[in-house]
Formats: sequence, C-alpha cells, structure tokens
Amino acid sequence: MRNIRLIIEYDGSRYSGWQRLKNSSETIQGKLENVLSEMVATPIEIIGSGRTDAGVHARGQVANFHTKSPMSIREIHKYMNHYLPQDIVVKEVKEVSERFHSRYNVKSKRYVYYIWNHWIPSAFQRKYSYHLVEKLDIGIMKEAAAKLVGTHDFIGFSSVKKTNKSTTRHIEEITINKEGNMLVFTFTGDGFLYNMVRIMMGTLVKIGLKQMDVSYIDEIFESKTRANAGETLPPQGLFLEEVYY
Amino acid sequence: MRNIRLIIEYDGSRYSGWQRLKNSSETIQGKLENVLSEMVATPIEIIGSGRTDAGVHARGQVANFHTKSPMSIREIHKYMNHYLPQDIVVKEVKEVSERFHSRYNVKSKRYVYYIWNHWIPSAFQRKYSYHLVEKLDIGIMKEAAAKLVGTHDFIGFSSVKKTNKSTTRHIEEITINKEGNMLVFTFTGDGFLYNMVRIMMGTLVKIGLKQMDVSYIDEIFESKTRANAGETLPPQGLFLEEVYY
Repeated sequence: MRNIRLIIEYDGSRYSGWQRLKNSSETIQGKLENVLSEMVATPIEIIGSGRTDAGVHARGQVANFHTKSPMSIREIHKYMNHYLPQDIVVKEVKEVSERFHSRYNVKSKRYVYYIWNHWIPSAFQRKYSYHLVEKLDIGIMKEAAAKLVGTHDFIGFSSVKKTNKSTTRHIEEITINKEGNMLVFTFTGDGFLYNMVRIMMGTLVKIGLKQMDVSYIDEIFESKTRANAGETLPPQGLFLEEVYY
Repeated sequence: MRNIRLIIEYDGSRYSGWQRLKNSSETIQGKLENVLSEMVATPIEIIGSGRTDAGVHARGQVANFHTKSPMSIREIHKYMNHYLPQDIVVKEVKEVSERFHSRYNVKSKRYVYYIWNHWIPSAFQRKYSYHLVEKLDIGIMKEAAAKLVGTHDFIGFSSVKKTNKSTTRHIEEITINKEGNMLVFTFTGDGFLYNMVRIMMGTLVKIGLKQMDVSYIDEIFESKTRANAGETLPPQGLFLEEVYY
C-alpha cells in the first residue's frame, strides 16, 4: 500500500472542526475523506496530526492515508483541490514511507493566535482574530508567557477531564508581536492538551489587562485547577500553523 | 446642519454593492442609512464618493450625511460600529465644512486588484482575490500598464453605454507588485468609468498571458470599442483603497 501525506490549509469558519462526525459531513476530515473515497472508488480513512475544534483554522495541518491507487502525486493533488470546497486547500501531496503516521510521529506543533486590539473593529480580520477593545500590556504578557515555557503539567490550562494519561507537556517557545493593531502570539511545543492554547491565551489576556498578577501562572500550575485560569478565548483567532516531524 | 464625513471599510462579499436598492437593504449604503436613521430617529441619506459593484470591497470608501443631532463624534462612531453588521466598519468619523460633498469634491481615487497567481489556490484569499493558474508575465504587463497611464478616452475600457458625458479620464499611476503568490495592482486616477478597473485588469491579464500584444492597448483607445478589450475580471479581487480630496 502507498502511504500519502497531505499538508492542508483550511478556513474553519463554517466547520464543526477537524474530526469526522457520524451525523455531519461538515467537518474537515469528512470533506477530505469524501473526496478521496470518490477519487479511488473505495472508502478512505485519513489520519490527522490531531483534531482542531469548530471554527479553528489551519495553514499546515498534516494528514496521511493509504491507498493502492496508481494515480500520480500531481493527479491526486489536482483532483483534491478541484473537488474540495474552496475553504479547504491541499497545499502539498507527498508519497512517504509506509511507517509514517501523522499523529504518532509528531515531534512538535506551532499554533498562532491573533488578537485585533483596537476599539475600531476590522471588517476583514473579523473571522480570523479575536477582537478585544481594551489595550493589552505586551511587556507583562511576555513575562507571563516566559513562565509557561518549559516542561509542566498543563492540566490547569486545559479542558481535559480526569485522565490516566500524562498531562505534562513541553512548551519550547512563545512569541508575542505587534503588527499594526494585530497582536500575534505563537506557541511551539511537543503537544497541546484540549483547549490548552485558548486557555493559555485567556490567562495571558487577563494578565495583560492587569486583572491577574503574573505570579498567578505558578498558582495555576500548583493548584492544577482549570477554574483558576482565564477563560477559553474564541476559536476564530486560532490557527494550526505547522506540524513538525 | 452638521455635515459628518465617514471613512468606511467593508467586505463586499455578501452585498449587492454600495448603492441603496428599493427592494433590498442588502447594500452598503442601505445598511449605513438604516443604522444612522435609527440613531437620530429621522430618515438619513448618505452621499458616497461613488458606487462599488456587488462583491467589491473597500478599505477607504468615503461618505457624508447631514444631521441636526447633538451627538458627539465619538458617540456616533461607537453607535455605528455597534449596530452595523460586522462586515461593515466605520474607521473614521469627522465633522467637516458644510460645503464638503463626498462625490463632487473627489480629486482622485486609488483602487487595488489582487490576483492569486499559483496553481494551488488559497483558502484564506479566495474571497479577496481572483485565482489565476496560468503564470503572468509581469514585465510585459508593466509595459502595457504604462500605456494606460495619462489622459485618454477610456470608453473602450468600460461598460458605459452611449453617453453625452465625458469618458476621458486621467490615470496618474499604475503599479504592479508580487508579494509571494499574490500579484498586487494599484490604479490611481481622477476617476474611473463603470467597470473600468476590472476591464483594464482583464486586458492586462490577456497581455500577461501573451494572448494579446502590448500594442493592442493603442488599438482599444483608437477603436473606442469595449469588445476589443479583455474580459471584466470578477469583483472579489477589487478594493476601493482610498479617496483623495
């Protein structure tokens, strides 16, 4: 069997997220599988690097699937972009080793979160950022972000219910940049728990608005209690930027 | 009466264009007038710098209206962005001289047209650019654009029917730049006829694909025949960028 790896970009606005659902084909995985299954005239299941939630976007989601189809890589690529809806685009198609697995082999991931931080909203960024009127203090948020970097049990920054699996993750880097009225946050790490980026963002915002002290990050790590962290920021500001193998 | 000038940004995707229509409030002007009329509890008519067609966007449309309302500029600004749909944003509100007229006083306008020129489409640019797979020759298009600059009768580059009004316009500058896969065309001039930017774009594309010679621009000027020019490119690549007074 051939093993084909895809790099996928999608505007998540009108989807119920990545994962295929029984009663809805309005998921990214569902759309991709439908097109691939038509293409090779046999049911195809794809393996994604991980889920993204409803409304979250991606510039570099990775997925792979197995097939006996003799189609060329270029033919597969053209076929997919021809039949996929315009808000899902396959950026790259590559034949990879049989052993490659989009989820198991992930080394790290990079997410980007956008905040439009001005009292006048943006007509063009409304679906691709979170609009926050109150001015954020970037210096203080950078201090707080530095405390999140490293290896920690992030259960307090996630929506994960009680679990036997490890909730320890390593965050390599967080960057915060201002580009005009847009604040751009990047998170690179070996893995992210359910809602973890959006809850870290909600916590950074609370600190940036001086509603919470920087030292509160330590308390969330210690208490391991999600209720102590900031709110889960909305999905439309979040992009899965790149997956590293 | 106070005279209030607005600078407006809009995502034209879901609108029938700028101009108010009798049987549809799904126009930019209609939406703005509805909100303003509610605000001052009396019917308001606004004057725009000019129309934009269905699907065309704006980053700097200008309009003005007259009112006796005692509301402050800041109050008007906040009220409008609060009640307008999210794809229409008022960027600036200013009280101007009684004599200011958004249409009559226009000195020049700048439009931008975006072409996504790559065989792989873009999920995020699909509503804000025209997707063209075939590679364009930028050098040749720049030569052709230079022929459009200056004072000419542009009737051959417009959808204007027979008219007694002058169809002579002055184009100050056309620039063409490549930003990654995006080609960015700007047009600055003292006025543009109906569909003129989109027909100039269709003509430049035909030349950039070498389906038409650069010298053909002269023939369109001489023949004054729209049928000789390229097709009208689709609206979603076009932005009214700025209006100068």
